[in-house]
Amino acid sequence: MTVMLPSVLAQVDEVVQPEIRAALERIDERTRLVAGYQLGYWDAAGNPSGRGGKGLRPALALLSAQAAGQPLDRGLPAAVAVELVHNFSLLHDDVIDGDLERRHRPTAWAAFGVGPAILAGDAMLSLADEVLADDPERDVLRALATMHGAIRRLIAGQAADVAFESRPDVGLDECLAMARDKTAALLSCAATLGAVLCGAPPALVDGLARYGERLGLAFQLVDDLLGIWGEPAVTGKPVLSDLRARKKSVPVVRALTSGGPACGQLAELYARPGELSATDLSLAATLIEETGARDWTEKQADRLLTEALAALDQIGDLGTPAADHADVHADLVAIAHFMTGRDH
Amino acid sequence: MTVMLPSVLAQVDEVVQPEIRAALERIDERTRLVAGYQLGYWDAAGNPSGRGGKGLRPALALLSAQAAGQPLDRGLPAAVAVELVHNFSLLHDDVIDGDLERRHRPTAWAAFGVGPAILAGDAMLSLADEVLADDPERDVLRALATMHGAIRRLIAGQAADVAFESRPDVGLDECLAMARDKTAALLSCAATLGAVLCGAPPALVDGLARYGERLGLAFQLVDDLLGIWGEPAVTGKPVLSDLRARKKSVPVVRALTSGGPACGQLAELYARPGELSATDLSLAATLIEETGARDWTEKQADRLLTEALAALDQIGDLGTPAADHADVHADLVAIAHFMTGRDH
Repeated sequence: MTVMLPSVLAQVDEVVQPEIRAALERIDERTRLVAGYQLGYWDAAGNPSGRGGKGLRPALALLSAQAAGQPLDRGLPAAVAVELVHNFSLLHDDVIDGDLERRHRPTAWAAFGVGPAILAGDAMLSLADEVLADDPERDVLRALATMHGAIRRLIAGQAADVAFESRPDVGLDECLAMARDKTAALLSCAATLGAVLCGAPPALVDGLARYGERLGLAFQLVDDLLGIWGEPAVTGKPVLSDLRARKKSVPVVRALTSGGPACGQLAELYARPGELSATDLSLAATLIEETGARDWTEKQADRLLTEALAALDQIGDLGTPAADHADVHADLVAIAHFMTGRDH
Repeated sequence: MTVMLPSVLAQVDEVVQPEIRAALERIDERTRLVAGYQLGYWDAAGNPSGRGGKGLRPALALLSAQAAGQPLDRGLPAAVAVELVHNFSLLHDDVIDGDLERRHRPTAWAAFGVGPAILAGDAMLSLADEVLADDPERDVLRALATMHGAIRRLIAGQAADVAFESRPDVGLDECLAMARDKTAALLSCAATLGAVLCGAPPALVDGLARYGERLGLAFQLVDDLLGIWGEPAVTGKPVLSDLRARKKSVPVVRALTSGGPACGQLAELYARPGELSATDLSLAATLIEETGARDWTEKQADRLLTEALAALDQIGDLGTPAADHADVHADLVAIAHFMTGRDH
């Protein structure tokens, strides 16, 4: 399935990107160079380049302000904050995982060194708080509490991911919990933070959080599938990259815990010392498919998308102003389809 | 000069440490183990151990609440926040510098790995914000803005420190600016944050900030001197450790920019590839002394201490309630002497 880039993302780009660039001005020049590189604003020498991410999280933050009956731009501090937190986390994860490439470019630590990369992540994390706390007229303390909760889960998820690397006995439940913390927590935060900042009622915030949480896990499952069966030209990562790194992603753990002969052979491959050959990698992918883990993961992602959309339908009953409501709903549905149909 | 541990530090320990431990409960278990190790609460296996730091920053935060005419414990969120920020920064700095030992123990990354150490630093940075934002009755937004400003300077200072490593031409002014950002910014923040949280008037906050800023740079200069001429048994670092790592600390940069034959010989040693021998290290220390840089740095530290104490005397005129005032003033003076007379 090919899914078009929802038009709301282009609009979001126009209003959010200048705000993020303005926020970066507060950081010292050395660290700003690294942060802006990570965000895709310039190359390692500081020359302008095309931007990096698709801006999914800031789009969700702006739409959540609209869902609360406010103009889109009332969610701007939330949009800037979640994009900064997301990029802080990518930056530190790349250092931790030793990954050399992201979005078809060297990762920030590969381009600038470990020290500048760690510091740029720190600066973006602190800047996110600063931006969110800027406007004393808004429901800042509630927004900060929401974001801090998500950051804690994000860190917990990444810590679990790191710990799983050296454990042969990772269970499916703890693996799914890790994926929820690592990815769904911040997406759920993004889908609510604009609304929270605008003082939205708890029932609306809870509905948006459910949408974001389900969508976030669906998104991670699709990402896990692409990490094994994705096209390198599309994903920007080497073929079978997650298996090469022996990642304990959800399909892999589902396969490893499924029982049967394919499962045992896969466990043997994952436990073997040294690099896996191209033949071994292809075999591992086939074994995972044979256990039914690919099919299971696809079904889970579909089910979660359905649940996310159902959560949205329930929000429809909460009485957002009728004029705006239809557009916001359609945009949130479009983003959900876009995020879970990622052959792009 | 031997300076006794000011009694206020022991009192502070009693009220602040349980609060920090309670705050750590919010972090996931894996990351909490690393954070508590960094703070000196337990060893790498989680068994209780003596605590680590002296608690200078939380003490300053509590005293600043008292200086604002409030009970000591009104500064508690500020005290917890600055200690968390300080330890976040130590933790990431140890990763960045590749340092293996701190406070006579393996550094956190040496004990747990780079990934868990980076994540524990991230968690402490975010937790500091969370703790400070907890109480909606207080002047939280002003306190957050104060702390975010200090964190930005802290990161700028560390980024400059990293950049200086590969530059042979570091000037004295930029080196002093780096030291101010790296150390004085957070000390100045600590010396004001309790007062800010209590809604203290700007004149009092400015006076405390001046005290903290001068004291912070004095403290860093003494630390730089100890990094060359300190006793390993006292500093917990190898003899001549800063020269071994070819650090561009203030006395070194003062020597390198002083002109004259000793200066040229020192530059030659610093530029030489490979490890420096024990003889080379001793020679480097002697050369620095010959340029007058040791004497100059000591005089600067003395002058800054005098300025810090003068800033305190000016605060005396601002009309803090008489009963508390004498004690707070005496405690701040005692901490200043303690921090700049560090043969302990």
